[in-house]
Amino acid sequence: MPYADLTKEELMELKKSLKAEYKAMQAKDLKLDMSRGKPSQEQLDISMGLMDVLSSDADLMSENGSDCRNYGVLDGIPEAKELMGDMMEVPADNLIIYGNSSLNVMYDCISRSYTHGVMGSTPWCKLDKVKFLCIVPGYDRHFAITEYFGFENVCIPMLESGPDMDMIEELVQNDDSIKGIWCVPKYSNPTGNSYSDEVVRRFARLKPAAKDFRIYWDNAYTIHHLYDLDQDHLIEILAECKRAGNPDLVYKFASTSKVTFPGSGIAALATSHNNLEDIKKQLKMQTIGHDKVNQLRHVRYFKDIHGMVEHMKKHANSLRPKFEMVLDTLESELGGLGIASWTKPKGGYFISFDTMDGCAKEVVSKCKKAGVVLTGAGATFPGGNDPHDKNIRIAPSFPPVGDLEMAAKLLCLCTKMAAVDKLLGE
Amino acid sequence: MPYADLTKEELMELKKSLKAEYKAMQAKDLKLDMSRGKPSQEQLDISMGLMDVLSSDADLMSENGSDCRNYGVLDGIPEAKELMGDMMEVPADNLIIYGNSSLNVMYDCISRSYTHGVMGSTPWCKLDKVKFLCIVPGYDRHFAITEYFGFENVCIPMLESGPDMDMIEELVQNDDSIKGIWCVPKYSNPTGNSYSDEVVRRFARLKPAAKDFRIYWDNAYTIHHLYDLDQDHLIEILAECKRAGNPDLVYKFASTSKVTFPGSGIAALATSHNNLEDIKKQLKMQTIGHDKVNQLRHVRYFKDIHGMVEHMKKHANSLRPKFEMVLDTLESELGGLGIASWTKPKGGYFISFDTMDGCAKEVVSKCKKAGVVLTGAGATFPGGNDPHDKNIRIAPSFPPVGDLEMAAKLLCLCTKMAAVDKLLGE
Repeated sequence: MPYADLTKEELMELKKSLKAEYKAMQAKDLKLDMSRGKPSQEQLDISMGLMDVLSSDADLMSENGSDCRNYGVLDGIPEAKELMGDMMEVPADNLIIYGNSSLNVMYDCISRSYTHGVMGSTPWCKLDKVKFLCIVPGYDRHFAITEYFGFENVCIPMLESGPDMDMIEELVQNDDSIKGIWCVPKYSNPTGNSYSDEVVRRFARLKPAAKDFRIYWDNAYTIHHLYDLDQDHLIEILAECKRAGNPDLVYKFASTSKVTFPGSGIAALATSHNNLEDIKKQLKMQTIGHDKVNQLRHVRYFKDIHGMVEHMKKHANSLRPKFEMVLDTLESELGGLGIASWTKPKGGYFISFDTMDGCAKEVVSKCKKAGVVLTGAGATFPGGNDPHDKNIRIAPSFPPVGDLEMAAKLLCLCTKMAAVDKLLGE
Repeated sequence: MPYADLTKEELMELKKSLKAEYKAMQAKDLKLDMSRGKPSQEQLDISMGLMDVLSSDADLMSENGSDCRNYGVLDGIPEAKELMGDMMEVPADNLIIYGNSSLNVMYDCISRSYTHGVMGSTPWCKLDKVKFLCIVPGYDRHFAITEYFGFENVCIPMLESGPDMDMIEELVQNDDSIKGIWCVPKYSNPTGNSYSDEVVRRFARLKPAAKDFRIYWDNAYTIHHLYDLDQDHLIEILAECKRAGNPDLVYKFASTSKVTFPGSGIAALATSHNNLEDIKKQLKMQTIGHDKVNQLRHVRYFKDIHGMVEHMKKHANSLRPKFEMVLDTLESELGGLGIASWTKPKGGYFISFDTMDGCAKEVVSKCKKAGVVLTGAGATFPGGNDPHDKNIRIAPSFPPVGDLEMAAKLLCLCTKMAAVDKLLGE
């Protein structure tokens, strides 16, 4: 029965029994972390073969004859471009292969635009006001970068099929201080949903007032499916922008951080040739080249995109039971109570969970006191400020599935407690 | 006999025979590159064992218990800090371990100061004028960074014992638009000399008008000796700055690019705790962490600084004959002619070569036409502009020693030809 239909007496009674349950949970002395989208040890073990593909008797020459051990090759070896191009669904020659972190690439894109502008535009540091659009709930590290540069982060609500495109179109057409938008278009962080075909098409057809406006398309979960057949599909944005006559509108990012090892993978940027040319002017000042041995290591390990896809099935086998465990627990504990809602992703690393308004902070705090660390309430909004205090990002990947059941139950319990308090007006 | 003492007729005669020699050289159809400080294939082979230390059955945990395969550890694993600290002669806790490129770290330091200032100072992008001191001849990639940011590069002459400290002291004390100085203090690029004790002490005692002035101390060749006993020694600048009451004055850079593999090594920044705190505020926006697996790989390979020192002896064994070959050739071909001078380094990657005034471009061009690529004349000066057109950077590391003899002879020949033309007033 929905909590809203309970009498005050029933709620008081419920409160008492929930409190007893919570005490019993606390007694278990849990120490679990569901705060970040970190692969588990089991997932890391999947990629250990990566450590064996290059040995001291290996040939470390790229297919174009350059010695991967030496200086040079600013934008990546050709075979790495091909592999990452296939992963990102763009031609190899639209890519730059970077170092170990796509976040680093995104930061550098913002920083470069701030210091030197975009394809000849006024450097953003010379402007009085710069705004960036942030789809909420979204990824805290994105918002942190634009906040760090002093931009105004403007919230755009995430809807069922992607962000509110009416709002985005209206804003970017009329305000030339808006220079970009942060997107995680597939298995979004944290909602896990993917942008519909119409949303992607509308993105590609944006007519920004600012010529140096770019879509920051962080396709972090492009091949990170939970199921082999039931997968989200996303229209490829670079090609769609080209078709729409806006070839330079987008920077697309990806990495192998959640394919092989986070921190020891390779990252890439895909964009138009005009953008690439602009970016390389800066990149050649910044470095002589990224780690080509690691590029080669990844190519030799996967061989091709098929190898990568097969590899991702192993990750899916590890992640799927965890997602299902959390979703089953949420359904069995909270289904029909009218005090929470949540997303049911087919890929990615997160489930987005909404409590009743004004309850998220309390739920996270209660979980913490019973030994389960969740992503801080509000973290999915710029400045950590969730105006409804209801969104919590659940990251099921890291803990073992047994622990996860306990953690999910605790989350449900704390959600119930906070809801009862709210309904009692406490 | 010095060319200056030759009669016009003797010079004319000489010109003729040099021209014949040059034609013979051209007929050899050489294709050699002495342009960049790249390790040779022989040197790269020295480090192939690096490929074997981490295999799929290796334990990839850091000594502090963190899994090197996963996210986290912003400033580097402790054992990498210790190794690089020993290499850089600073305590491990004064370090941040970065990715594969110290140039990237330097660029990012300039960029951060430009966008966010230094320890609370006005961001440099908000200033009308920023100047940077460049010791000449020096490293082109340093100068290119500050030029790219629109700073005025101010030349400081390199003297026997280091840069002209009188000039530096005078300038930085009186001009608060001077925000830094590029230094390669040991086996300098390209002169190969090292700063004297007095020079280092005077650096540490600078009293810059700008509170956000920093010394960019690129100790690229800190353990890159040619001889086991006859080595240059440099006073450690961080400690000296601390003693002088200027603990925050310096950023010190190094990498293993010329220890293991260029592009696949690890880089580090050493500086005061105040500076580290300032830098980490930015770094945590830019990345979750650098490649810890590669950090671990380097530590496991070298074990400790002694392992690294022994390793560098192998590089020395490969480089020493090359340096000696070039120096012997220069001496036997040009000694006593009064038309050229050059340095005799005990380490590093370069020999600095001076032609007669106004001859360097011509010499480089003549060499190129006979198949030997040298670093472009002027490259060792900001903007590529050598006011005397005399300095050429010789990089003997890459070609095999046999080729090198040919290349050095060609260089001498072209130097003679240009000198004769100059003396003839042509």
